[in-house]
Amino acid sequence: MGFDIAIGARVRKSPYYEKTVEAGVSSFSVYNHMLMPTGYGDWAAEYDRLVNGVAMWDVAVERQVSIKGPDAEALTRYLTSRELGALKPEQGKYVPICNHEGILINDPVLLPVADDEFWLSIADSDIKLWAQAVAAERGLNVTVSEPDVSPLAIQRPKAMDVGAQLFGDWVHDLRFFGFKAANIDGIDLLVARSGWSKQGGLELYLLDGDQGGQLWDLVKEAGASFDIGPGCPNSIERIESGLVSYGADTDEETNPFEVGLGKFVNLDREDDFVGKAALTEILANGIKRAFVGFLLEDDFPSAAQHKMPVISNGVDVGFLSSSAYSLRVGSSIGIGLVATEVSADGSPVSIRNGDKNFDATVTSLPFKIK
Amino acid sequence: MGFDIAIGARVRKSPYYEKTVEAGVSSFSVYNHMLMPTGYGDWAAEYDRLVNGVAMWDVAVERQVSIKGPDAEALTRYLTSRELGALKPEQGKYVPICNHEGILINDPVLLPVADDEFWLSIADSDIKLWAQAVAAERGLNVTVSEPDVSPLAIQRPKAMDVGAQLFGDWVHDLRFFGFKAANIDGIDLLVARSGWSKQGGLELYLLDGDQGGQLWDLVKEAGASFDIGPGCPNSIERIESGLVSYGADTDEETNPFEVGLGKFVNLDREDDFVGKAALTEILANGIKRAFVGFLLEDDFPSAAQHKMPVISNGVDVGFLSSSAYSLRVGSSIGIGLVATEVSADGSPVSIRNGDKNFDATVTSLPFKIK
Repeated sequence: MGFDIAIGARVRKSPYYEKTVEAGVSSFSVYNHMLMPTGYGDWAAEYDRLVNGVAMWDVAVERQVSIKGPDAEALTRYLTSRELGALKPEQGKYVPICNHEGILINDPVLLPVADDEFWLSIADSDIKLWAQAVAAERGLNVTVSEPDVSPLAIQRPKAMDVGAQLFGDWVHDLRFFGFKAANIDGIDLLVARSGWSKQGGLELYLLDGDQGGQLWDLVKEAGASFDIGPGCPNSIERIESGLVSYGADTDEETNPFEVGLGKFVNLDREDDFVGKAALTEILANGIKRAFVGFLLEDDFPSAAQHKMPVISNGVDVGFLSSSAYSLRVGSSIGIGLVATEVSADGSPVSIRNGDKNFDATVTSLPFKIK
Repeated sequence: MGFDIAIGARVRKSPYYEKTVEAGVSSFSVYNHMLMPTGYGDWAAEYDRLVNGVAMWDVAVERQVSIKGPDAEALTRYLTSRELGALKPEQGKYVPICNHEGILINDPVLLPVADDEFWLSIADSDIKLWAQAVAAERGLNVTVSEPDVSPLAIQRPKAMDVGAQLFGDWVHDLRFFGFKAANIDGIDLLVARSGWSKQGGLELYLLDGDQGGQLWDLVKEAGASFDIGPGCPNSIERIESGLVSYGADTDEETNPFEVGLGKFVNLDREDDFVGKAALTEILANGIKRAFVGFLLEDDFPSAAQHKMPVISNGVDVGFLSSSAYSLRVGSSIGIGLVATEVSADGSPVSIRNGDKNFDATVTSLPFKIK
């Protein structure tokens, strides 16, 4: 049983929207106030393309927050808990962002696009507004804005071959999160080695939304001999891989230590950053929850529509946030946040879906692929 | 041709979700990271109920940003451009919010719920994160959070009668944006005279999401003799009434003067507030755009899916953001933001939809109802 999505001016269309409609998109979600394709009506083919072939994804919803000006680097360093070290041109970094209370509020990839300009390629929250407030209240000389930049992803395993055909063999030399400016048929792009899957691949950061249709066609054409087809960030693969999805796997209290991002919290940094004091205290008090996988009974709903309580000895110990049937694991699987007491591999728990309880076994992430 | 909406943990379900499904909801949008019903499959009946009868709306997406603590009032006053004067208990106010550059970033209703606690009942942007940043960087002693509060609206013209049946005759004495705590069958609520339509009515601020189904049933039961039925914020009525929809009618550059909210920008306030300097400069430089209505040709698309360029003498002069066929106006109508040069009543413009141009006549808001 499905419901329609209402389409109006408040939720923006991607520059690839018309092309995704032509390609048979069947469902959307909303992410960063923009329509995000979530399926093309054949989940098995879409999964297979990602894991064994190559897929093209409209991920224009990965909006960029541009921080530009004399104080851009200072602000960027202050916004993230990660010690960025020397920021090299053309090399991105994953930079979790916490608020002043140490709560995770986004987990972008940082792209240093110029000496005085940095982009945060964000997950689903209004970091532009938040960063504007921090910058203005600190009196920093920067402009924080959302530029007209819309990524189109080419994801694995044949993604690099499609990219080489489009841009040349140099794409093979890109390091993970590395990127390079390119131009193809008059379309200016940044070509980045990244993606919203553990499979990886390329993301083409389109720099002019008016050229979306043209870029889509070029990628489709170059990918034809590799059997490229449409797809989207894949729930099954992301659960198997244990990739955190901000907003789905997190709640109003989630700190980065709980979801496995502690290595990006560098409390020994000499400079101050947002949340430093709070994160120091959180760590001193001990981490109370852990991000884990669940092996589920076969009749568990294949795609959880909402967070479901996880129960141990009659007590609520956390939540499951996503679930799917995984052919590669050979089981129904899920992902979620639970009390550390029940987070060890093999811990038995149950998961409440409405008024029904399902047995589950906690397992570490990523899942073991058969 | 419709597309499904994907439903998963990242986009939250309202406490009334199951009840809206039972009531036959057919489409959703996403607003404040939550599913928002946008139709029940019979737009004519839904419109008629709002204009001539009474409707109940799941507007749990109107999330509250709670500002609580010793500095709560000081922060609240600093966040909005409006001079709030003496804040009376049980009396809300409409308080547009701008960023430090004077750009409109939300237009909430403020509810003073205690001497040291204020709620902003927000439109679709992450004001919680933004307000947290302002508060922390200013070293204010407040907690900014999103409480478990979910409004259910009862909208016009028989809304007050349904309310009186539920709560007693005192609801008739509520002033516009006035509110009062109430309890019904063990359910704690704030009952407010407000709503997302010019028709007005009541909004019941449910204080415990677990009681959503119970509250829905009580309202449905009390409204039965008034023929109450489901509905949702109504696009036709809001265009007729000229109600601004933040995000739809605004863009990255919109200031409050452009969308008719200048009366809530009190530059003569003695105290400082976010955006004061920028708004002063914007006003001094002259307001460049105005929020207007459009009388449209009958074959104009009845519900614009995105902003469309408005053209005058071959030049792009603004955008149309929403459109609908209005029985009460007797025409296809639209709403949008245009250059002040073409904003006078009767100005001829054309509106570009794809590769087709439609003639339109600018008209002041609200539309004249026949």
